[in-house]
Amino acid sequence: MRFSNFLGGLFPKDKKFFTLFEKASANLLECAKVLNEAVQTPSEERRAECVRLIEKIEHQGDDITHEIYNELGKNFITPFDREDIHSLASAIDDVLDCIDGSSKRMILYQIREISPEIIKLTDLILDSTKELQKAVFELRNLKDLRKITDSCVRINSIENHADDVFDNAIAKLFKEETNAIEVIKYKEILSGLEAATDMCEDAANVLESIIVKIS
Amino acid sequence: MRFSNFLGGLFPKDKKFFTLFEKASANLLECAKVLNEAVQTPSEERRAECVRLIEKIEHQGDDITHEIYNELGKNFITPFDREDIHSLASAIDDVLDCIDGSSKRMILYQIREISPEIIKLTDLILDSTKELQKAVFELRNLKDLRKITDSCVRINSIENHADDVFDNAIAKLFKEETNAIEVIKYKEILSGLEAATDMCEDAANVLESIIVKIS
Amino acid sequence: MRFSNFLGGLFPKDKKFFTLFEKASANLLECAKVLNEAVQTPSEERRAECVRLIEKIEHQGDDITHEIYNELGKNFITPFDREDIHSLASAIDDVLDCIDGSSKRMILYQIREISPEIIKLTDLILDSTKELQKAVFELRNLKDLRKITDSCVRINSIENHADDVFDNAIAKLFKEETNAIEVIKYKEILSGLEAATDMCEDAANVLESIIVKIS
Repeated sequence: MRFSNFLGGLFPKDKKFFTLFEKASANLLECAKVLNEAVQTPSEERRAECVRLIEKIEHQGDDITHEIYNELGKNFITPFDREDIHSLASAIDDVLDCIDGSSKRMILYQIREISPEIIKLTDLILDSTKELQKAVFELRNLKDLRKITDSCVRINSIENHADDVFDNAIAKLFKEETNAIEVIKYKEILSGLEAATDMCEDAANVLESIIVKIS
Repeated sequence: MRFSNFLGGLFPKDKKFFTLFEKASANLLECAKVLNEAVQTPSEERRAECVRLIEKIEHQGDDITHEIYNELGKNFITPFDREDIHSLASAIDDVLDCIDGSSKRMILYQIREISPEIIKLTDLILDSTKELQKAVFELRNLKDLRKITDSCVRINSIENHADDVFDNAIAKLFKEETNAIEVIKYKEILSGLEAATDMCEDAANVLESIIVKIS
Repeated sequence: MRFSNFLGGLFPKDKKFFTLFEKASANLLECAKVLNEAVQTPSEERRAECVRLIEKIEHQGDDITHEIYNELGKNFITPFDREDIHSLASAIDDVLDCIDGSSKRMILYQIREISPEIIKLTDLILDSTKELQKAVFELRNLKDLRKITDSCVRINSIENHADDVFDNAIAKLFKEETNAIEVIKYKEILSGLEAATDMCEDAANVLESIIVKIS
């Protein structure tokens, strides 16, 4: 499999994959920014607008993912392993899905308030997608592998942090919220957000596996 | 990888995979039909019978999946990419598992009534498995790739529809059901059914990736 | 792909993978033993100690998984298929994650008592990880493939058993527990434990696929 890297350089068409992944990770970062606005705006109207915008961004992401799969089908030679390209595209897609699902549920379930734990998790998602975008933009040149590794390490540590925030948020809900239906609602939204950081970690794991094969 | 398609034609033994996938998708369609009967019959006794029948069908599905994996282990040359064969078999298996799990829970949790949303989701599962079967039966000849693509597009749109049905069903439960334990029960059953349409979409994605490599 | 097995014997370096998988499965078994102590000790203090120990073992597992991925990146020739090595490592890692998550939640959610169903599921996890370890230790010599197959069959049947225990535990909760928040807590812990047996089954499926290719 390693020879694909070597041959890759001879085929300028391969650059397409880098461009597509750059688009995918920039689109994801945009999505995380809108999510942040959604949970921080005091206006319910603006929140609803943000949620609709997130849905639009998610659809754009679907198109990019589809384009990557199409390119994968058409190209025998790829800049890195085919399965890594596939896994990276689908991990980025999964993050978008989690953000989209959680933000929709905030509106649909008519939750009483955006809790501090929800805001904390969206902050972590934003941090993680920033690191992911940085790492993806390093893929094209691969001049500084350390930068990619550093971003991956940070994404992993953000995910651990998100786990703790989630676990404590749930424990607090169990202790303080007496209305079980409210517990279910918040648990559902929090777990969608936490899952977004898991999916970022999945993407980082793919990046690490690409790096390991090259170095 | 593409050469596997080319060489495939020389090896008549490969036809086995088509036969096995045809069996798997027909078995799945049968399962979706029994699920439909289970939720629409007014007789509780008949419902229990249907659920036992679904379990039997699920076991048959396990055997077919196992046979596909076995063939995969024994054949170096396959009619399409090994990972696609593996993913398609396991996606079909996952749909069966979701149907089996959800139908069992309807009995086990002694839910008060089969809600209209449960019936709607089982309708969508039936539609989706019909399309899946059509697409799988086109694989053997590949004369009309458009037919496969069309089925995949429909499966994707069914999944989107199921998402909406699910989201609205949950929102309605949160609003109207005051007994939180009933909320949990219905949520569990609805999410198993919705997951079945997700797994159909996974299968459709594999079919699309097979098509892309051939065309 | 099969040629990798043939060439494998020429490369003594490959033995590293066996050693790493032996370490991974022994580490997992240790984790399952500590989980068993955690749910059976009458001392809450000792339980908390066990949960911290499980977290430590989970971190050790992460290191081993990482080492396997690294070796995979560095070696072109592997003793069995690269994707099988990857899947086996990540399945073992997933079992650890499930055990770690569930045991943490027992403390965090301050559940009133360790129910008989929780104890039963931890027993099944222990049985399953014992079988998994036996099977993994057979991989190095492959003298007696039947032993591996037998362990895999037992892991599958343990998983079915765990499914039933879980389903009945949930049905009982729905019937007997009137506090919905307690229902949610127990359901969360039970489903994490049940998922651990699913992940053991995933690992067994990989082992079976390795065996099929060799025999």
